[in-house]
Amino acid sequence: MENLHSILEGNGRGRRTGEVINSFLAILILLNVVAVVIGTLNTFSSQHAELLHGFQVFSLAVFSLEYVLRVVTCIRHRAGRYTHPVTGRLRYMLSPLALLDLIVILPFYLSIFVGVDLRFLRVFRLLWMLKLMRYLPAMGTLGIVVRRERGTLGTILVLLLVMCFTASTLVYFFERDVQPESFGSIPHAMWWGIATLTTVGYGDVVPHSPLGKMLGGLIMLSGIAMFAMPAGILAAAFAEEAKRKNFIVTWNLVAQVPFFSHLSAREIARIADLLHPRTFMPNEVILHRDEDAGSMYFIVSGKVEVETDPGPVMLGKGDFFGEVGLLYTGKRTATVMSLSYVELLELDLGDFRRLLGANPILKERITQEADRRLSRSDSVYQAAG
Amino acid sequence: MENLHSILEGNGRGRRTGEVINSFLAILILLNVVAVVIGTLNTFSSQHAELLHGFQVFSLAVFSLEYVLRVVTCIRHRAGRYTHPVTGRLRYMLSPLALLDLIVILPFYLSIFVGVDLRFLRVFRLLWMLKLMRYLPAMGTLGIVVRRERGTLGTILVLLLVMCFTASTLVYFFERDVQPESFGSIPHAMWWGIATLTTVGYGDVVPHSPLGKMLGGLIMLSGIAMFAMPAGILAAAFAEEAKRKNFIVTWNLVAQVPFFSHLSAREIARIADLLHPRTFMPNEVILHRDEDAGSMYFIVSGKVEVETDPGPVMLGKGDFFGEVGLLYTGKRTATVMSLSYVELLELDLGDFRRLLGANPILKERITQEADRRLSRSDSVYQAAG
Amino acid sequence: MENLHSILEGNGRGRRTGEVINSFLAILILLNVVAVVIGTLNTFSSQHAELLHGFQVFSLAVFSLEYVLRVVTCIRHRAGRYTHPVTGRLRYMLSPLALLDLIVILPFYLSIFVGVDLRFLRVFRLLWMLKLMRYLPAMGTLGIVVRRERGTLGTILVLLLVMCFTASTLVYFFERDVQPESFGSIPHAMWWGIATLTTVGYGDVVPHSPLGKMLGGLIMLSGIAMFAMPAGILAAAFAEEAKRKNFIVTWNLVAQVPFFSHLSAREIARIADLLHPRTFMPNEVILHRDEDAGSMYFIVSGKVEVETDPGPVMLGKGDFFGEVGLLYTGKRTATVMSLSYVELLELDLGDFRRLLGANPILKERITQEADRRLSRSDSVYQAAG
Amino acid sequence: MENLHSILEGNGRGRRTGEVINSFLAILILLNVVAVVIGTLNTFSSQHAELLHGFQVFSLAVFSLEYVLRVVTCIRHRAGRYTHPVTGRLRYMLSPLALLDLIVILPFYLSIFVGVDLRFLRVFRLLWMLKLMRYLPAMGTLGIVVRRERGTLGTILVLLLVMCFTASTLVYFFERDVQPESFGSIPHAMWWGIATLTTVGYGDVVPHSPLGKMLGGLIMLSGIAMFAMPAGILAAAFAEEAKRKNFIVTWNLVAQVPFFSHLSAREIARIADLLHPRTFMPNEVILHRDEDAGSMYFIVSGKVEVETDPGPVMLGKGDFFGEVGLLYTGKRTATVMSLSYVELLELDLGDFRRLLGANPILKERITQEADRRLSRSDSVYQAAG
Repeated sequence: MENLHSILEGNGRGRRTGEVINSFLAILILLNVVAVVIGTLNTFSSQHAELLHGFQVFSLAVFSLEYVLRVVTCIRHRAGRYTHPVTGRLRYMLSPLALLDLIVILPFYLSIFVGVDLRFLRVFRLLWMLKLMRYLPAMGTLGIVVRRERGTLGTILVLLLVMCFTASTLVYFFERDVQPESFGSIPHAMWWGIATLTTVGYGDVVPHSPLGKMLGGLIMLSGIAMFAMPAGILAAAFAEEAKRKNFIVTWNLVAQVPFFSHLSAREIARIADLLHPRTFMPNEVILHRDEDAGSMYFIVSGKVEVETDPGPVMLGKGDFFGEVGLLYTGKRTATVMSLSYVELLELDLGDFRRLLGANPILKERITQEADRRLSRSDSVYQAAG
Repeated sequence: MENLHSILEGNGRGRRTGEVINSFLAILILLNVVAVVIGTLNTFSSQHAELLHGFQVFSLAVFSLEYVLRVVTCIRHRAGRYTHPVTGRLRYMLSPLALLDLIVILPFYLSIFVGVDLRFLRVFRLLWMLKLMRYLPAMGTLGIVVRRERGTLGTILVLLLVMCFTASTLVYFFERDVQPESFGSIPHAMWWGIATLTTVGYGDVVPHSPLGKMLGGLIMLSGIAMFAMPAGILAAAFAEEAKRKNFIVTWNLVAQVPFFSHLSAREIARIADLLHPRTFMPNEVILHRDEDAGSMYFIVSGKVEVETDPGPVMLGKGDFFGEVGLLYTGKRTATVMSLSYVELLELDLGDFRRLLGANPILKERITQEADRRLSRSDSVYQAAG
Repeated sequence: MENLHSILEGNGRGRRTGEVINSFLAILILLNVVAVVIGTLNTFSSQHAELLHGFQVFSLAVFSLEYVLRVVTCIRHRAGRYTHPVTGRLRYMLSPLALLDLIVILPFYLSIFVGVDLRFLRVFRLLWMLKLMRYLPAMGTLGIVVRRERGTLGTILVLLLVMCFTASTLVYFFERDVQPESFGSIPHAMWWGIATLTTVGYGDVVPHSPLGKMLGGLIMLSGIAMFAMPAGILAAAFAEEAKRKNFIVTWNLVAQVPFFSHLSAREIARIADLLHPRTFMPNEVILHRDEDAGSMYFIVSGKVEVETDPGPVMLGKGDFFGEVGLLYTGKRTATVMSLSYVELLELDLGDFRRLLGANPILKERITQEADRRLSRSDSVYQAAG
Repeated sequence: MENLHSILEGNGRGRRTGEVINSFLAILILLNVVAVVIGTLNTFSSQHAELLHGFQVFSLAVFSLEYVLRVVTCIRHRAGRYTHPVTGRLRYMLSPLALLDLIVILPFYLSIFVGVDLRFLRVFRLLWMLKLMRYLPAMGTLGIVVRRERGTLGTILVLLLVMCFTASTLVYFFERDVQPESFGSIPHAMWWGIATLTTVGYGDVVPHSPLGKMLGGLIMLSGIAMFAMPAGILAAAFAEEAKRKNFIVTWNLVAQVPFFSHLSAREIARIADLLHPRTFMPNEVILHRDEDAGSMYFIVSGKVEVETDPGPVMLGKGDFFGEVGLLYTGKRTATVMSLSYVELLELDLGDFRRLLGANPILKERITQEADRRLSRSDSVYQAAG
């Protein structure tokens, strides 16, 4: 049951199966969107009415099952802490994504009791698109950036509206006598104003008087600023966000190394400070067999090849190598080559030893960890040590 | 009276009440804008003429009262210095925002003496939108960035106009015989030119000759550059501005700490240099109870939880912790955890002590401050010390 | 004569007068552009034919005089080196800006000998806009950035054209039977293709078939990428250019200090490395009278106020202060406050002394310089020392 | 034969000739595109049918020859390793660019055996544009950036589609009764939705109801965000990519220096770390003759002039100078001036010596290299030493 939940959430051991199921669900959502859209074509919907209805019932059943399974199988919640079976599930049911799952299927069940326009209900399935949020990994980044810059972006929006109001009022005075049907009131003129300021420019309503045209030209030029400003603000914000993400990558890399995993956050932060970024071009030798071991490496990006005896082993993002050499052998026991442009974090021997000296618990833990590795003859680490 | 002024300005002790009042004023402005816009719809304005007029009179009364109160209650001005009651108020009345407040209500009073078209007067209320400037925090940033890049942005504007003139002249030669009513003169052709260069593209006027169309294609491509250039310039400028703001945040953080608040700017700048940025992931332990106290921390962003005895205390942006441990206990007396992604500034014990050694006045002040804290049993700082 | 040239070029001692003259010339250019544009309005040009012709003759005379003066007064050229009167002037005449000045007035003189359509000649004055280049300071930055990124921008242009060709060919197949007059050949279809890809969207030609509309939707989406790509590239390029400019500012600041002005470039580069950026908020005390003098400062941006005895002195960008204290008094003799957000470069006492120790010539020069300053009682530097 | 291949690939010794041939091929591709496009104009194609056909046959012959030559002359492949004549050529034939070369000419040969619409075949030549990929150097950078940001960009695309679906559904409900022919179904309404969201705004279909127009205004505003978001993301990504490229430049500079060329990647990475960036303004003296030699320099960008005895020598990007002075003379033997804004990487004498001390093989190699240079009297290096 716990496994089933982790499959549905697409994490833990059930990741692969979860990805398949989630892909199926995402495709089902998209098919429903297509069905709703095509269903409004009269020629199509009258011919395939039964097919469309059947598909709606099938989809509803699948998403209802999905919701029930998600709730029922939810035993552990939030950072793996066991919670009470009832309160834990209730808390899950109140989480935003679970609430969304419920809200988008509820109307179909309510319609059995309450009379609802079936046509409207059919179109309502478009809201199932909101379930796609779950599958968009970059939503978080976009949200953070927009929220951080909400003050500046909001100010630009207000400026844009102020300009739109001003332009529409002016054009109303210039054009109301010439074209009373298009510019007879400010709300009418605003239709032209917003279309011009956003550079959409339908052309269904266009000023005819010379003053109106000159104002139009000014508004079009302002439209460029209205595009350039938010683009500039978001560019700066995304650049800062990228820096923050790089830190998280470094942090996670350090926390991932087995014998660092039990360190406190402050100790990890200290180690993260000791790491020096190193970058290698493709097909360069990073470590030479029988060289003196002077440091260990964590891979931030790219791929390296460890030339071990049974055959070459490839290491990628998040892997590390060179630590056995620091602890025991003193010499590199295998050659490591870069396969692509590689970014590494290097921990020097000196810093490594100072860390152990200041921290007897860490020292003991590392010795145990290294012994375990050597004894199980882990060829990768031993070789690359 | 002083309080009333700080309420209206939305700062100092009256901040909360001021926010409520200012929100009310902002909404009143927006409602007036809506009233003006809807008022130009003949069907609506004839039906609700009295309501609209009553609302105008009410709004005018409110903004008149606001202006009078702002002027009358202005006792202290500029960095809290007391000024002469009359000259101080006159100086306030000449400040840009106060002048604006006056100018936008003046015409309504003048109209009593001078005959003004009432319709125009009604629409004049749109200028009240300018009062919104007071409530747009990012206006300053936008202004700084645009002013700093005015040379580059102005050059692009000139380039755009040069291109517009050139394109319009060429299309005038290509099209004047084919479409004399649309391209009969360069000013006529410019209406097409600016609409094409800004990618608005109304389509009310379109070249018909092959040469005119080829020129049109070129102008459209140039339009992309005219968008990309200012966006690129502003992106670089906003990124630099963000750096400047980060410095101001750090500075203010240091200046906020009680026993740093009386330092000179140069000393604060020195301390700001001694601070090391530290970043923590959510749910990480920053300080452990009973650990050796090695540094104090200032929170730049994010939230931390101090696990004190009566119950957990949350600290946020601008707060600091860990300084009592540096001064007296030598050990941490509580655990501090990050609740979100947290950015801290760390001041190491060594730097902290060197600062005190070199500055006996600072040392005395700090000792007094810490004594005060300990004696009033401020659980947060004591615990987190 | 030399002065006259420096006035025309707007540099050296004649800067102020030069600015006035150049503003007059720029306005004259713009007035000519307006005259050309308005002159194509038949109603206007027939009424004011003589006025327009007179203005053209007057402008031509002014620009001819400007060209002759620029050439005749050109004695010194390029970094102040005196050149031979004839070859120097010839070389100046072949410089791009001088050639442009000649080319745009030449046709009017040639037209006396050769028969040219007078109407065309009148419009030819639009080329005088090119003379505005001289007055656009940011042209250089834009040129550098565009040239540095020409590879990437060119690739995007090729991609855009490839997409335009592909889209036009496909829409030609989809629409040629439905709308043979609009999509009857690929060149016809390209008019739609380029207008859609650049998001101009005239709407004079629009696909009617479902396939054509789906293709149109795809092309519109691609249009977004075609805007975002160059904006992104230029943003990164402008950010790098800003860094380069900052270096030039620092360099010039150091080279500006009298006793550094005779150093070699390598020595200036070394000193530039020793400078630490310091930033101050408005109204902060940077130096306190009677404090120990520990460093000297160069102003990168912002304004500071030196509270000297006769009255406060304001220093701005490029000024420096605090060096007399380093050399003689050992104490600050005046208080320096920031008036705005100030960026300074600080040179510490240690680095300052090491510089002198390693460089006896510099030491002698500095001593002489400081003596000169103290003897002429330069209140600013003495006070701020 | 090997030479012929390197000419075709435009690298190695045959670079110059290769550039000419490749320019010819690129122009031939573009001429074919123009021929296809113009060929669909009935008036033109009927008049010049034979010319067009002849040009098609000629082009086909050239590209067939190009393909055969590329395959036949391919002896060495991938990093200069000799491969088996048959398997090597097969592997080359399966590389993406070679496959593309084959695919775009194959249909013309197949058409001899299979009956194909000749008109379609003619238009098929547009695909030859894909061969231009080979000549677009920035394709790689664009590809890397887009691939790295594919998650974020994909999320924005999904958001855009969700907004398009939502807007189209809403406008369908608002407008289907007013304009059944334009908004009679959601697919019909989507034509308006996508044109509005991308700010294309044809204006052939426009909402008439007040609700539809308000929705339209909202969609237009969202369109701005849809442009600003990807522009911002790509700006941050291009800035990071620029940093990565700078590293590669530094790396290649170091690896280019003859006596570093045999170092391992790790040693090059170490040396790259020891290099200090130095920047000089145009016309500054970098090295003075007879000064003490304290460091050697690598040119990252810009040009310098070495004032040697026979005449000045210009060095550019990738060149280096000052190393002979470090090894033998101890003094600079020539003056080096910057001709433009120059970025250098400086290797200090101390680091240079430590490198030699720790690495006897390197020391021997350097001595040999320097001897070779001095003996062949390489004036540039000797002078600049």
